[in-house]
Amino acid sequence: MNNRLVTMARHPAQLTVSAEDFQILEVPVAEPGERELLVKTIYIGVDAGCRAMMNEDPYVVNMAVGHPFVGTQIAQVVQSNADGFVPGDFVHTLSTWSDFSVFKPAELGPWCYKIDGDLSLAVHLAGLGFTGFTAWVGLNEIARPTQSDTVVVSAAAGAVGYAAGQLARMTGTKRVVGIAGGANKCQYVVEEGGFDACVDYKDPAFADHLKTACPEGIDVYFENVGGKVQQTVLPLMNDFGRIALCGQIAQYGDEVSHGPNWLPLTLKRLKVQGFLANDHFECFAQFRGETEKWFRSGDYKSPVSIVKGLENCHEAINSLISGKNLGRQVIQVAEAY
Amino acid sequence: MNNRLVTMARHPAQLTVSAEDFQILEVPVAEPGERELLVKTIYIGVDAGCRAMMNEDPYVVNMAVGHPFVGTQIAQVVQSNADGFVPGDFVHTLSTWSDFSVFKPAELGPWCYKIDGDLSLAVHLAGLGFTGFTAWVGLNEIARPTQSDTVVVSAAAGAVGYAAGQLARMTGTKRVVGIAGGANKCQYVVEEGGFDACVDYKDPAFADHLKTACPEGIDVYFENVGGKVQQTVLPLMNDFGRIALCGQIAQYGDEVSHGPNWLPLTLKRLKVQGFLANDHFECFAQFRGETEKWFRSGDYKSPVSIVKGLENCHEAINSLISGKNLGRQVIQVAEAY
Repeated sequence: MNNRLVTMARHPAQLTVSAEDFQILEVPVAEPGERELLVKTIYIGVDAGCRAMMNEDPYVVNMAVGHPFVGTQIAQVVQSNADGFVPGDFVHTLSTWSDFSVFKPAELGPWCYKIDGDLSLAVHLAGLGFTGFTAWVGLNEIARPTQSDTVVVSAAAGAVGYAAGQLARMTGTKRVVGIAGGANKCQYVVEEGGFDACVDYKDPAFADHLKTACPEGIDVYFENVGGKVQQTVLPLMNDFGRIALCGQIAQYGDEVSHGPNWLPLTLKRLKVQGFLANDHFECFAQFRGETEKWFRSGDYKSPVSIVKGLENCHEAINSLISGKNLGRQVIQVAEAY
Repeated sequence: MNNRLVTMARHPAQLTVSAEDFQILEVPVAEPGERELLVKTIYIGVDAGCRAMMNEDPYVVNMAVGHPFVGTQIAQVVQSNADGFVPGDFVHTLSTWSDFSVFKPAELGPWCYKIDGDLSLAVHLAGLGFTGFTAWVGLNEIARPTQSDTVVVSAAAGAVGYAAGQLARMTGTKRVVGIAGGANKCQYVVEEGGFDACVDYKDPAFADHLKTACPEGIDVYFENVGGKVQQTVLPLMNDFGRIALCGQIAQYGDEVSHGPNWLPLTLKRLKVQGFLANDHFECFAQFRGETEKWFRSGDYKSPVSIVKGLENCHEAINSLISGKNLGRQVIQVAEAY
């Protein structure tokens, strides 16, 4: 069996990556040992964190040159020495970006679990996977919107933002406003995602439009982008507002840039809190129970943008950087067998 | 009776204020009406917020030119038409900076209350007043240090910081480290305040000294200053750290300056929360119960720096700006009669 493994060839010179930043090695397929699985990769999830890790910036979780990329994926079991798994099973797992991989499910803890085959496979990397879970944690464990709150979500057409806005709407928040790039995305977010409004940050009148879209100010900001969007949102925050810091894609290519002055945080008594969903695994079953019901009824949607071929992984990252993707960005490595 | 009232003559041109920024008016003493008190001011509390309010900067709570200064004070009742108060009583109140003032206690809510005469009067503006309460709220309601936490407090020789460090120590935190300006203040904070260490931010090796003083990193940062001290603290914060934003005196004279990049907040899952003690009045009785006991036993100290004379109010503000004060800065307007 042919097995390719994606490694980092160099730190990218700019925010956009090129094929030369990656090296694809031909490697042997390992033989699964005791309690191990051999799986075939079908979909790999790609997020802005994949790009952030490629920086040399010491503030960011870093990859060394020559190291393989690792991330969440949907795979199919080829050979099983682990209890509870048989060939043909679909699994959510955390592994190298490669055609095949071998691992012990027991060592991956909550990252590795079997997937029901009756839903589309990619949704398990998207609205029903850790992407949706990130949105759920940011809302339920960090920002906690009430029924009288206005919630604003940046990168609203991205996987996490799109899930966050829908989840806020379904838990009964007063008003959900998205921020996205371009009129088409904004229209999609409102018409398909059910947001009350969505504002185009590329429009020169963005700040005015955002203010109009939030007539009672902003109580919760679900932050996915940083940069200028963040600077526009902050002055509209109401007293006692909460900001859930999920990602700041606009800043991943920067030198360590400045952020906003903190004085308004004191005067408005704001809470700004960074979070990572994997600190909250104990809530994953609750999240799955709620969202799978909504997904099956059609109330909770989870679009997926697919780049085909492991060799095109740079295109998948650039799709996120440029905002080309709608919903969850994945690489399709193979078909299910 | 001669009655002077302090108003703002102009927005100060720089962080340090001058006598010309203030206008002292001669005004009549009002006759107290129904349910009103006439009081004679003894001590006025001065804090960095008094300076911040003088800016034109729209981010800050502003005073208009010509408006009187208002703040917390200790006063003595001269004439009473209000139930529960008789001439000679001492009160904590919120009023204009003037020799005399007239107000309805009932309209001031928790800001106005009678004071036992057996403690020094100024301590009711300091460790046992809203200054100490600010420290208590920042710790107990916002940062919530645990017994394994390292707590760092900036402006540790200032009224709020000195109280915060002592309260953290008494509630059983693992390690309490102050930051103050100058070797004398640092020595005072350790020897008198019982902090485990105190680091001089004016020392060129400040960053190294802070790192050495916090061998297990920083879990809680009680922020009173902003600026460069803040930039030095942030990289030392541990995962899941909490930053209680109380004040940022270093920035009050600035144009709207930049703050730190927020990306590390996400990666470290930090919580940054602004607060004002007056949102937490329901806890004031609990605070008073705890701290008065500690104050009477000598475990909780509350130094006061006094500027004499209402006409010297600019000196009291400059004492805070330059860091000349030790503990709570007050203006003594008169002696008790």
